[in-house]
Amino acid sequence: MRKFVKESIRRLESYSMNEEKIEVKLNANESPYDMPINIKNVLTDMLFTEKLNRYPDSKCYELRKRISKYTGLNSENIIVGNGSDEIIKMIIDAFIDKNEVVVSYSPTFSIYKIITSIAGGKFIELENQIGKVYIDELINLANKNNAKVIFLCNPNNPTGMSIPREDIFKILEKTDSLVIVDEAYYEFCGETVIDSVRKYENLIVLRTLSKAFGLAGIRLGYGVSNKRVIEILNKVKPPYNINRLSQKIGIIALENKDIFLKHVKEIIKERNRLVKEIENIKHIEVFPSNSNFILIRSEKYEEILKRFKCKGVGVREYGVNGDLRNCIRISIGTKEENNIVLRALKEV
Amino acid sequence: MRKFVKESIRRLESYSMNEEKIEVKLNANESPYDMPINIKNVLTDMLFTEKLNRYPDSKCYELRKRISKYTGLNSENIIVGNGSDEIIKMIIDAFIDKNEVVVSYSPTFSIYKIITSIAGGKFIELENQIGKVYIDELINLANKNNAKVIFLCNPNNPTGMSIPREDIFKILEKTDSLVIVDEAYYEFCGETVIDSVRKYENLIVLRTLSKAFGLAGIRLGYGVSNKRVIEILNKVKPPYNINRLSQKIGIIALENKDIFLKHVKEIIKERNRLVKEIENIKHIEVFPSNSNFILIRSEKYEEILKRFKCKGVGVREYGVNGDLRNCIRISIGTKEENNIVLRALKEV
Repeated sequence: MRKFVKESIRRLESYSMNEEKIEVKLNANESPYDMPINIKNVLTDMLFTEKLNRYPDSKCYELRKRISKYTGLNSENIIVGNGSDEIIKMIIDAFIDKNEVVVSYSPTFSIYKIITSIAGGKFIELENQIGKVYIDELINLANKNNAKVIFLCNPNNPTGMSIPREDIFKILEKTDSLVIVDEAYYEFCGETVIDSVRKYENLIVLRTLSKAFGLAGIRLGYGVSNKRVIEILNKVKPPYNINRLSQKIGIIALENKDIFLKHVKEIIKERNRLVKEIENIKHIEVFPSNSNFILIRSEKYEEILKRFKCKGVGVREYGVNGDLRNCIRISIGTKEENNIVLRALKEV
Repeated sequence: MRKFVKESIRRLESYSMNEEKIEVKLNANESPYDMPINIKNVLTDMLFTEKLNRYPDSKCYELRKRISKYTGLNSENIIVGNGSDEIIKMIIDAFIDKNEVVVSYSPTFSIYKIITSIAGGKFIELENQIGKVYIDELINLANKNNAKVIFLCNPNNPTGMSIPREDIFKILEKTDSLVIVDEAYYEFCGETVIDSVRKYENLIVLRTLSKAFGLAGIRLGYGVSNKRVIEILNKVKPPYNINRLSQKIGIIALENKDIFLKHVKEIIKERNRLVKEIENIKHIEVFPSNSNFILIRSEKYEEILKRFKCKGVGVREYGVNGDLRNCIRISIGTKEENNIVLRALKEV
């Protein structure tokens, strides 16, 4: 069987995730809030009117109209994916030929590298200190390697840090690359470059309904760019990639956006409280975050994890080696969940 | 922007579909039957228990268990896709490097060619007469071109014809290629090679819940192969490709399979009636079908289409040139819908 496998796949390590049973799930940067019951009631009606035997709208016409209203961009600037993962895949499929180069920094969201590798592209990372991105070095690295695509996760996962707008504009202007700004966590930060897709023809902004809108379970991401880029991405988009129910739920969620943006406020408040409290714990370093999670580092790494396990708290662990040694990423949960986290950290 | 685009994408024509408003929708080989109300009631309960804010099960554990029960294969032999389109994509991603060869025959399902082209692979087609596949020529073509992958749509879309098991085994034995048997329409035919994935390590069988199970709207396909192939496909599978609701609906549909298989019987009965009636219409040639659609050819092509349009009937048209000149593909609808089709054809 091995002889059949594409060279770039042989050594590929897939995206790994911890699927242990945990009680307090703070390992995947999900929202702690499920859709409120009154909106779920609306969904019930939808189930009876939607014809499940018919293919979904391939163009996601109504959903894109809603996203257009939410973002202030036109429908023709928007493409929808089965999670923003799928849009990352479309970008690589459309633009990265074998051995062509994608640049990003490290650490960041691991999917960029995995999808580039699957396509046989070369993924080159600039190593940064946690919480810093050396913009000039990034620009040099991209130009030196003739990078076709640059990924900027902003705010960055897993560091929580964001890159100022001016720095992104600098990258857009000083490189000859397509710049993908992944704003999955935008709502927890508030700063965006989405308004600049009209100005920069090499800019693509990614967003998702998995985080602020608490819809990780239905898989909806979107990409925003100028019309010509969207036309190219549509060429490689699978025909019926968004099922009927996810399209409908996305529309209903955006119609009720105020409920979800209230959740966002709650999460930001809790994040800030958590950071402040943890700053008082001597053995822990907590990095500033513009996101719905925080990254901490501690010499008492193993003890903290043991304590979390005891209390049924699931977090993202980064091991004792590499850039992220002794680091733990903790998603912001409900107030009660965050109190469990704080208690655990203080007990160590 | 053009300079950024991958060479293989520049001239690519996307999958096209007719999205006109039509009353009698017989253009996409969908089931005419929506999920019965009593099953939709079960779905309603599901909506309230499913936590939409949590990522879905990446491994589709419960769904694969259900598919395992339905197919008689083990869970470890099964992978689930966002429609079988996505599994076709995984196969090409895992096995077809730039310029490597995929072989199929023509006419067939157009997605094989599109996905191969996106990956920069070479798609070589054996031209057949409608309703015939020249097996020895196909084997020669594959071997001569060192084909890594062969696609067999069985029964074939859009011809409705199927290849006998013995011929598929011959292809499996006499080529050094991965042989993909796309059994999307299996339930309307009854013959399968799924039981042979244990014997042939180069066999992958594709199935879908879009046709017999009438679930085109929720996007669920699956692939069945030996454990090693499935492990390789899992390397390129997007982490959370199947949303929570589709997983749950798939499980519920398979638990209630008898309802859907009764629909299948109804559709087969209607198909046979339609073929028989159309055989009596002088100017129309109707090809034998093992599927949920029929292909017809007529010199009065344009008149037939005009008549269909008048009655609000949507079908798949193939134009007046090429292999499929003057051909129309008509999905089998409800009895009433099929009567409208017959009336239109007889009026021409």
